[in-house]
Amino acid sequence: MTKAAIAAVICGVAMMVLLTVEPAYAAAHHWVDALLWACLAFFVLEWAIRLRHAFGAGRQWAYVCSFRGFVDAASALAVPIALAAGISPRSAWLLGIFWMLKVLPGVRGLRQLRRVLVLESGPLLSVLVIFLTVLFMASVAEFYLEHDVQPAGFGSVPAAMWWAVATLTTTGYGDVVPITPLGRIIAAVVMICGLGVFGLWTGILATGFAAETRRDNFLRTWESVSKVPFFASLGPAAIADVTHMLRTIDLPARTAIIRKGQAGDCMYFISSGEVEVDLPGKKVTLGEGAFFGEMALLGNNLRSANITTTRVSQLLALDLVDFRLLMARHPDLGETIDAEAKRRVLENK
Amino acid sequence: MTKAAIAAVICGVAMMVLLTVEPAYAAAHHWVDALLWACLAFFVLEWAIRLRHAFGAGRQWAYVCSFRGFVDAASALAVPIALAAGISPRSAWLLGIFWMLKVLPGVRGLRQLRRVLVLESGPLLSVLVIFLTVLFMASVAEFYLEHDVQPAGFGSVPAAMWWAVATLTTTGYGDVVPITPLGRIIAAVVMICGLGVFGLWTGILATGFAAETRRDNFLRTWESVSKVPFFASLGPAAIADVTHMLRTIDLPARTAIIRKGQAGDCMYFISSGEVEVDLPGKKVTLGEGAFFGEMALLGNNLRSANITTTRVSQLLALDLVDFRLLMARHPDLGETIDAEAKRRVLENK
Amino acid sequence: MTKAAIAAVICGVAMMVLLTVEPAYAAAHHWVDALLWACLAFFVLEWAIRLRHAFGAGRQWAYVCSFRGFVDAASALAVPIALAAGISPRSAWLLGIFWMLKVLPGVRGLRQLRRVLVLESGPLLSVLVIFLTVLFMASVAEFYLEHDVQPAGFGSVPAAMWWAVATLTTTGYGDVVPITPLGRIIAAVVMICGLGVFGLWTGILATGFAAETRRDNFLRTWESVSKVPFFASLGPAAIADVTHMLRTIDLPARTAIIRKGQAGDCMYFISSGEVEVDLPGKKVTLGEGAFFGEMALLGNNLRSANITTTRVSQLLALDLVDFRLLMARHPDLGETIDAEAKRRVLENK
Amino acid sequence: MTKAAIAAVICGVAMMVLLTVEPAYAAAHHWVDALLWACLAFFVLEWAIRLRHAFGAGRQWAYVCSFRGFVDAASALAVPIALAAGISPRSAWLLGIFWMLKVLPGVRGLRQLRRVLVLESGPLLSVLVIFLTVLFMASVAEFYLEHDVQPAGFGSVPAAMWWAVATLTTTGYGDVVPITPLGRIIAAVVMICGLGVFGLWTGILATGFAAETRRDNFLRTWESVSKVPFFASLGPAAIADVTHMLRTIDLPARTAIIRKGQAGDCMYFISSGEVEVDLPGKKVTLGEGAFFGEMALLGNNLRSANITTTRVSQLLALDLVDFRLLMARHPDLGETIDAEAKRRVLENK
Repeated sequence: MTKAAIAAVICGVAMMVLLTVEPAYAAAHHWVDALLWACLAFFVLEWAIRLRHAFGAGRQWAYVCSFRGFVDAASALAVPIALAAGISPRSAWLLGIFWMLKVLPGVRGLRQLRRVLVLESGPLLSVLVIFLTVLFMASVAEFYLEHDVQPAGFGSVPAAMWWAVATLTTTGYGDVVPITPLGRIIAAVVMICGLGVFGLWTGILATGFAAETRRDNFLRTWESVSKVPFFASLGPAAIADVTHMLRTIDLPARTAIIRKGQAGDCMYFISSGEVEVDLPGKKVTLGEGAFFGEMALLGNNLRSANITTTRVSQLLALDLVDFRLLMARHPDLGETIDAEAKRRVLENK
Repeated sequence: MTKAAIAAVICGVAMMVLLTVEPAYAAAHHWVDALLWACLAFFVLEWAIRLRHAFGAGRQWAYVCSFRGFVDAASALAVPIALAAGISPRSAWLLGIFWMLKVLPGVRGLRQLRRVLVLESGPLLSVLVIFLTVLFMASVAEFYLEHDVQPAGFGSVPAAMWWAVATLTTTGYGDVVPITPLGRIIAAVVMICGLGVFGLWTGILATGFAAETRRDNFLRTWESVSKVPFFASLGPAAIADVTHMLRTIDLPARTAIIRKGQAGDCMYFISSGEVEVDLPGKKVTLGEGAFFGEMALLGNNLRSANITTTRVSQLLALDLVDFRLLMARHPDLGETIDAEAKRRVLENK
Repeated sequence: MTKAAIAAVICGVAMMVLLTVEPAYAAAHHWVDALLWACLAFFVLEWAIRLRHAFGAGRQWAYVCSFRGFVDAASALAVPIALAAGISPRSAWLLGIFWMLKVLPGVRGLRQLRRVLVLESGPLLSVLVIFLTVLFMASVAEFYLEHDVQPAGFGSVPAAMWWAVATLTTTGYGDVVPITPLGRIIAAVVMICGLGVFGLWTGILATGFAAETRRDNFLRTWESVSKVPFFASLGPAAIADVTHMLRTIDLPARTAIIRKGQAGDCMYFISSGEVEVDLPGKKVTLGEGAFFGEMALLGNNLRSANITTTRVSQLLALDLVDFRLLMARHPDLGETIDAEAKRRVLENK
Repeated sequence: MTKAAIAAVICGVAMMVLLTVEPAYAAAHHWVDALLWACLAFFVLEWAIRLRHAFGAGRQWAYVCSFRGFVDAASALAVPIALAAGISPRSAWLLGIFWMLKVLPGVRGLRQLRRVLVLESGPLLSVLVIFLTVLFMASVAEFYLEHDVQPAGFGSVPAAMWWAVATLTTTGYGDVVPITPLGRIIAAVVMICGLGVFGLWTGILATGFAAETRRDNFLRTWESVSKVPFFASLGPAAIADVTHMLRTIDLPARTAIIRKGQAGDCMYFISSGEVEVDLPGKKVTLGEGAFFGEMALLGNNLRSANITTTRVSQLLALDLVDFRLLMARHPDLGETIDAEAKRRVLENK
């Protein structure tokens, strides 16, 4: 998603919100209207361009039927259609809320989240069934107990369900509250069930998320590890082992990775890109496959030089903890790092 | 549970809810009454048939004493008995809430949930005791501090407990609130304890659920793994290892598993059933024990053919992550897959 | 804790609660008073007996200074002292809430809980510091923003803290609510921080609890495993391995463990006590070190006999999942179980 | 952070709070004012001293730009500047809330917490995006549905967002509540989404925290383990293994570690410092590298002597569970401990 699109979304949604604030809109309605139309124009244009691209590539149906295609269409068409249908502008522009959905496909963690929801759908649905059963039974019970004394709040089962859902989610508005002793006992049980539902939900999501995070990190790191010659000598079992220990870091150009004098607790392998080491008197560049920062793990706690990326780079970070485990399990790697570290110390003196 | 039964439950409960909504019922009371009686008739019939079956098989007591038997009986008898006892129809039909319980035995995750509750009952009960102790002590303290200034809200210990339970579960209706300074300090402590109780509850359930999910998956997958000849050469230790990596997927007939051109990140083994591979110019069927989708894991990221089930099938999915671990630990399996993949590529060219 | 003591606690606390309910007490004040005095007499007697025992064993100081000693003393003395000091009976009897604390030392999970709180005290305190910092900063900010428009609710920082604690714990009474725009934005941030504090708290407790549960189970099971001759042949590393797989179950006498015809998914080892197998025509007793239920794990899914304990027994349960892992890692154990199962089948035929 | 500084922070913040409580301030305004000025003087002095130190060491910019430097400056300058700018004293002293931030750098767990937030920032941001999307969409929908019937509560989208944030965080003030049927259905969905957001947040933090706790403990323990000669004979792989089992405990001088007669379930290694064993008739001191408490793990359940630190010491605790695993995996260590234990028993007789 381009920065222009993000700016348009933020500006559009902000204007839409402002439109509903009586005094603010009265004071600046020319600006608000102009910006709203500008954002709408931007989204219509964006949709037109994307549609044309899709037609050009023969993927028009794939695009139109995708979530992204639907959001693009709704962003471009919803407001004009509503205006054309004679709905008042203040209501019509509210449909600009579709613009907000354009941000979603750009969020990386959402894919991971969706996988968790799909894989754990079984247990999550079970909890939902429990939730609904408790909800219905509590509503019927409270309706029976309270509808004579509080016809306003518990006059029908749907009205009692409004109370039940606010209670079972522990939201507790307090606009409708049981007042008979038995009704309150049932309400107390519902609240405690609410805690339980909460706990189950969290437990399932926590379990699923932990597994997914591990999996995602492994997948991203695996490709990079095999590109680093340093690990090439390892067999596939050891590479799988090493992959679990490394963390992929993507960095733009001209970013400081290590600052001189800071305490360090990890070393880095360059899986793609290039970094520049700012040694006293000279600058050294390290390319793909090189490693640096190992001295912090070999006893010298403070970083001895500034290191910056020179272009977009991908690094693999190895934590102190995992460094030690790695050295323990693969002593030959430890010796290689040790030898290189000594060579560098000599060279820099 | 048949689809008819589910429809009857949904229709019955919906009508029961509608019955309590004054204007809706007034507008369509003929329909509502007719549907309620129809649902009741359905459940009476269902119960009669099940009872007869149980008698026929000599398991009548087992059936009558089981949860399912109790729910069936209550669904069939509760409303008629209440009506016969002279209770007003609007109240009597509320007993139709029993119908909802018929859904529960059909939810697969509930068995898993029950096991968690049984196995973790010790810690869960401890948390309940803490909950109750805090509840009682807070109620007595607030009753002492507040009952003179707020006789309506804190006039007795049970009344104070109503406040305490709403506070300790962080529901917070706000209908009764302490107003003395000391009462508010105690209330603050109760709220923080509420967070703690919540945390413990969730922690216990999360731990238990994670273990149970692993166990359940292992059990379901173990049977299938031993049926796949591909894994037959492995010793029992390796099979236990492999079982942890696979995920069982049950599919109905004529379901698309792989779509051409999509990105793939897992391969499949057929433990039962049959799939059809839609290659250009011909259709190939793969039966029990075969595997497919391996090319996505061997470097070719996009699926090269549509694959659909031809009848009810059970597949074992192997994720990219686990595929690599498996290949690392059992290189011979990797070679088998590699050889088969090459053979297929040649054949398709 | 004896059953009499539990009954006295329940009866005493119930009477104390009843004492505060105007109409109920008016109707039955003779009974309530009599029962309260009876309970008090019981606790005084209990305390006297325990004190004498402790003096007899020379452990009087250890007893008096322990939590149990303090609770016993408070249970026996608090109410009489309050009455003697001229406090009105209705208030004095409220001190009977100390009786409730007598239940706590009997709850087994509490020791486990205390260990978690001690071991995780570092992170938990950090979260508390964050909680308090947010609480104070939000209170001061809201006091500044709101005290002119709402002198009743936000008239001082302590008053604002009452709002802040109800908001940060997501209780949300709604008795005091910010109304200025900036005040509401700060309140929204506080609510979201509340979610975060909740999450951290739960995360820490969940992590700690999982570790503690594993540890507790290991400790309880280790002793039993070494008593079972079946495992005696294993080296210490394998015993540690096996211990992780088994679950200790304590059963009273005459309890059914297995019911004929049920589906089974675990086998049992007897670490102490005795069970009776109800075979057709004869009864077989199995003593310490024997195992049973193994046929369910060797393919025959339904239990073939009723098995009951004859006296207080301790069993070690081995789940189907773990049985398979065990057999895979220690094939000799598998052969022993297999041989015994075959011998039994022959014998029973 | 010195104790004087902590006292000044507590005193200063307490006085600032007191300043806002009308009656308390009226009664003791001389004291409150005096203490406030004293605290301010303390913080100004502290800042001056630290600035001078930093200048002396040539690190003035590092100090000024750090969080600590900023807080020190704000603590010293905010109140005087506000007073000088003519703000009323009651408002100006509220800026003393900056003093509270001085406590934060001293809290050890915060560093750990920050790492979790940084490492898990991806998923946490995803959840935040979901949170905001639901928030905006719910606000717009409720504004549309409710603003005609409740112009006070839902008169603009920002007003509706106030309701939405209180609902989505399950705070539920209840000051603004939807009353149209459709509005309530949407509100129910928002509440259930609130549970989901909660669950995701907790799940992510729990996962991250568990990993961070393990890492932190490993790092702290690793240094100590290598200092204990007892473990020196182990190879690096075994040391990594052992490190995972030990727990570092820092103790001040003259602290009781073991009390005679208590039940024990762990043994200790001294990584630095010294302890004194109070045997009958003599006192034995154990120095760096020694171990004690092993008898509790070798069958003798009750501690046989009091053991106290003589100076600041660091111990490594080995739990019963891990002791057994360690002995199983490294039998030679077990023999060493056994031999030493026997020698001690003989010596003490």
